Amino acid sequence: MIMNVKTITVAVALALSSQGAWADNPRNEPVQPIPAAEITNPQLVELGKKLFFDPRLSKSGFISCNSCHNLSMGGTDNIKTSIGHNWQQGPINSPTVLNSSLNMAQFWDGRAATLKEQAGGPIDNPKEMAFTHELAVDVLASIPGYVNDFEVVFNSRELNIDMVTDAIAAFEETLVTPNSPFDQWLKGDDDALTSQALAGYQLFKESGCVACHNGPNLGGTSYQKMGVVEPYQSNSPEIGRAAVTGSDADRFMFKVPTLRNVELTYPYFHDGEAATLEEAVDIMGRLQLGRVYSDEEVGNIVAFLKSLTGEQPRFEIPILPPSTNATPVPEPFG
Amino acid sequence: MIMNVKTITVAVALALSSQGAWADNPRNEPVQPIPAAEITNPQLVELGKKLFFDPRLSKSGFISCNSCHNLSMGGTDNIKTSIGHNWQQGPINSPTVLNSSLNMAQFWDGRAATLKEQAGGPIDNPKEMAFTHELAVDVLASIPGYVNDFEVVFNSRELNIDMVTDAIAAFEETLVTPNSPFDQWLKGDDDALTSQALAGYQLFKESGCVACHNGPNLGGTSYQKMGVVEPYQSNSPEIGRAAVTGSDADRFMFKVPTLRNVELTYPYFHDGEAATLEEAVDIMGRLQLGRVYSDEEVGNIVAFLKSLTGEQPRFEIPILPPSTNATPVPEPFG
Repeated sequence: MIMNVKTITVAVALALSSQGAWADNPRNEPVQPIPAAEITNPQLVELGKKLFFDPRLSKSGFISCNSCHNLSMGGTDNIKTSIGHNWQQGPINSPTVLNSSLNMAQFWDGRAATLKEQAGGPIDNPKEMAFTHELAVDVLASIPGYVNDFEVVFNSRELNIDMVTDAIAAFEETLVTPNSPFDQWLKGDDDALTSQALAGYQLFKESGCVACHNGPNLGGTSYQKMGVVEPYQSNSPEIGRAAVTGSDADRFMFKVPTLRNVELTYPYFHDGEAATLEEAVDIMGRLQLGRVYSDEEVGNIVAFLKSLTGEQPRFEIPILPPSTNATPVPEPFG
Repeated sequence: MIMNVKTITVAVALALSSQGAWADNPRNEPVQPIPAAEITNPQLVELGKKLFFDPRLSKSGFISCNSCHNLSMGGTDNIKTSIGHNWQQGPINSPTVLNSSLNMAQFWDGRAATLKEQAGGPIDNPKEMAFTHELAVDVLASIPGYVNDFEVVFNSRELNIDMVTDAIAAFEETLVTPNSPFDQWLKGDDDALTSQALAGYQLFKESGCVACHNGPNLGGTSYQKMGVVEPYQSNSPEIGRAAVTGSDADRFMFKVPTLRNVELTYPYFHDGEAATLEEAVDIMGRLQLGRVYSDEEVGNIVAFLKSLTGEQPRFEIPILPPSTNATPVPEPFG
């Protein structure tokens, strides 16, 4: 039997591995591949998908989770800061919902520990969906199609907001993007990356980006100050983690965003002020690392970043159960 | 061989039929079943689906065709009048896009002869998507993923608005909803309708509703005055067909809306002022037919109307090709 070198390497790695995780990451890099979603409760996920797409969770009947975390567009809205109820301008850039289950906490300032906790936030934020949890539950409870769905999953025809956010979070946990070219490379496929992307990854590691953008999500593992070597100039009112802790030391500390699918999640930074990946890489180099990358270096890192685009979640659009005569009517202009 | 009565009826009908249309409608009713969509150019349809869901066809980058013709919600937005750019209140209720290819013309006043002509309207309407056709084409032309799609379909890498509206219209033509319970009944299945719904259909025919709500779409075949026997009281600024013809005789003449999926397309009338089907039936009876339906009669007609909900279009959410550094940036607040 003849084995080529690559086959042998993978075979040995698999043979030596005592851990599944390492077997999936034979190169032992500071970034790990994302596993595909394992759906253990498909009915809960399906209910969560409906809720994620349902604008009746907003006062206007017009804004759904998917409005600002658009799953046709990398789980973002691709605008600097989001549009909320009555066209209010949001204070911060919508982070992607893709792979968000891999973050240590949710929101830029980490004020929600879990996806479930996060899911309740926009519904009753007066600048976003501008509703209340009570009214959202009232709407759902008036719709037999939903009540039946909740009963199947929660064994109860009495709805509450905990069930709603459970279901949304369960759907969001499925929104992972495995098998990016970079993940294929991590798993041992030498041909999955261009030489330019590989050079970009080497530079990404050597110059220090990976100190913060690490783990399976290339981010989401720590809070870091925006503007380490030089202060970051911004008109944004956001002060980051300090809003949660009340500590001056946490001013401008933000959760490090994931770089997964970053090609799709423009514009960049918490204020959305970096329009392109080139601009974002240049600014990060100067402000966070005190390093001015050459154009060639920026190009290499950007080529690496574009290799982080994974398989996007593919599913049928949900068909939402209709309201009834008992359903509270949306108030878009009230 | 033993045949039951129903089998014989259908067999005879099929044997006697000289026309395909009649074969599909053995009861010879003034309403005809909807055929399923036949997709002859799947790549054109797929491109149209992407465009239908792409908010980059709006100035804000936030509003897509699907925002007001939401395919999770019967092809409507389920609010009285739509929300446009900068949260402007639209003047008229969003008609459903479902089965719209079966209408004689598009918009409530019929000002667009075709779906293709309609598709261009909202893009450059300052109260809706608030963009221009030129800018929309510029955006798409800056996105290689789109340019490739257009080349496959139109054999050209030069884009124009005609191609855009061709593709959107081709997608919309697939948005039909066959096999409603009523259509199953029309095709010969006696068990497809409840006795209440059947009584409602008989009353619908006998009392004159079918004079306007006829054909496969139960509407969309004529313009009629809103308020025949009694005037319709409304705060709506819309004058209907007169806005197109300039003729006083056409004031308050509107295209008769389809009743297909009417259970999903609340609220009702051009101003969205009827919140429920019961209210809509009652008002139509009084204003158009000079007839006051009893509660039982209203209930029967509503049961019939709910039998018009067909199979909703099922398809994967489109994954949109990302913008590039050359793509004009949305201006949601500019």
